[in-house]
Amino acid sequence: MLITVGSQQALQLIGLALLDEDSYCAVGKPVYLGAVSAFRQMFPKFMEIPLEDDGMNVDILEEKLEELVTKGEIDKFKFVYVVPTFQNPAGVTMSLEKRKKLINLAHKYDFLILEDDPYGSLRFEGEPIPSIYSLDPERTVLLNTFSKILCPGLRIGIIVASKDLLRKLTILKQGVDLCTPSLTQRLAARYLQAHDRIEQLKPTLELYKSKKDTMLKALEEEFGDMQGVSWTRPEGGLFIWLTFPEWVDTMEMFEEAKKNKVLYVPGEAFYVNEVEKNHMRLSFCLPSHEEIKEGIRRLRKVAENYVNANSIRSKS
Amino acid sequence: MLITVGSQQALQLIGLALLDEDSYCAVGKPVYLGAVSAFRQMFPKFMEIPLEDDGMNVDILEEKLEELVTKGEIDKFKFVYVVPTFQNPAGVTMSLEKRKKLINLAHKYDFLILEDDPYGSLRFEGEPIPSIYSLDPERTVLLNTFSKILCPGLRIGIIVASKDLLRKLTILKQGVDLCTPSLTQRLAARYLQAHDRIEQLKPTLELYKSKKDTMLKALEEEFGDMQGVSWTRPEGGLFIWLTFPEWVDTMEMFEEAKKNKVLYVPGEAFYVNEVEKNHMRLSFCLPSHEEIKEGIRRLRKVAENYVNANSIRSKS
Repeated sequence: MLITVGSQQALQLIGLALLDEDSYCAVGKPVYLGAVSAFRQMFPKFMEIPLEDDGMNVDILEEKLEELVTKGEIDKFKFVYVVPTFQNPAGVTMSLEKRKKLINLAHKYDFLILEDDPYGSLRFEGEPIPSIYSLDPERTVLLNTFSKILCPGLRIGIIVASKDLLRKLTILKQGVDLCTPSLTQRLAARYLQAHDRIEQLKPTLELYKSKKDTMLKALEEEFGDMQGVSWTRPEGGLFIWLTFPEWVDTMEMFEEAKKNKVLYVPGEAFYVNEVEKNHMRLSFCLPSHEEIKEGIRRLRKVAENYVNANSIRSKS
Repeated sequence: MLITVGSQQALQLIGLALLDEDSYCAVGKPVYLGAVSAFRQMFPKFMEIPLEDDGMNVDILEEKLEELVTKGEIDKFKFVYVVPTFQNPAGVTMSLEKRKKLINLAHKYDFLILEDDPYGSLRFEGEPIPSIYSLDPERTVLLNTFSKILCPGLRIGIIVASKDLLRKLTILKQGVDLCTPSLTQRLAARYLQAHDRIEQLKPTLELYKSKKDTMLKALEEEFGDMQGVSWTRPEGGLFIWLTFPEWVDTMEMFEEAKKNKVLYVPGEAFYVNEVEKNHMRLSFCLPSHEEIKEGIRRLRKVAENYVNANSIRSKS
């Protein structure tokens, strides 16, 4: 185990350890952009694998791996990066079946699975699915963090990996910042000693669940009748992913949203090369129930204005 | 200004921002190894410039820069890394004259001076010399840290640089760890608000000075009569650099030292390619006065045994 300055540093160190400009790695489409910006420091080639409601499309992954075999470059494929549980930004969770298939692929094509699990403890409902790490610890590098369960400002991340890889990461860590602040590490340790982490989270999970439900209900009420609009229904985590018809550009729509004092993260921030512009990431944690309802109402108005103003494009 | 996880991260970010595998940078000979391991991530070429009692030999630096001009590669020279005040490991301080010469070279050959100043506030005696940054803020990137004046475990480093470079470093920092822990930043800020940093250091400086004097006196007593042995006489900082005749290998001697329960840092750790083996770094901060005296006594015995056992080599 290696303690890092947040998972972000874990991502950076793993990039430093495993990637170079000849390497390939696979990421979701969409993907958490922080991971991409960490890996990018080493200039690898990114394979973007579409996400579905039950996680990454592992069949497409397999096809792309086969293409690498044909090109004689499969040894340059280093890892698949996944946030299998309540993914950022899409909020979707990878099914057990897909997790097992991914592990099979990892063995067949000899690569590591980089399982980033910041949201796994934030399950509000439904049955937990075993982590990829628990299914195959040898093939998996597990990342975790205190940022979503205690305090993001602590910047405490955790890497669980093989001894060999940890040794490499530890040396890289020394070149990067010598060590993680000892005070914040002690705070996190004291928290774990003094508290039942799972028990402590219960009120938070109840709160988040109710807000998630409020947002889903508001989406149903406001967007239920709007053609071509869909959204994810996460059982935990922090995010809902709202999808508009393909011609919609949520970055363009953002100006109108700002005028109406409602904010979201335009989806195009979560793609590497093959950008999709018709999504947005919504977060239900911070706003009150009233603010969520009002926010979704405003968003509907913004979307409607945008659609009306651009109705010519919608037909082309 | 950018706050980093210790100066080590500052060094890494600056490496990321300024270096690549075609680049050159100049460092002291000896040099703080943490800087080298940070820069090395980008695979630059290192120029090693000998240190003298009054700092880096800037004439040799100029010669090497001229060689780059001849080779048509001077545009690949990015910066000189210096710890001009109480250098780690040698404890020496760069004279004002050399600082000015270095600035002239920076203008003439168009490079940056990376001034790492962790020990500048730890002056026990003698006249302060203006920082290179204060002499030429435009050409200088200044690094500082709370590690030597408050608490190393806080991991608070500081980069002062041009707006353009800071913007670049800030983006890189986001890819590296998003941000420095907010708690430790607040602690450092509160400390600065509530205390006179200079006043607070006075008892520490007095303590360090007396220990430095004890060590210098002990060195005089124990090594004064040993041929070919010399040491630096710092006016501040944490380190004394002890030099033996060229044939001595302080790493080899280290086994004997461990047996006699006296430790030092073998000097070879502080060189990039052109390793010198006949030095060691001594630190006078932590041990008590009695321990310092006893330690130097033991070191003399260790050195004497080593010299006697290897006397054949000393004549070759």
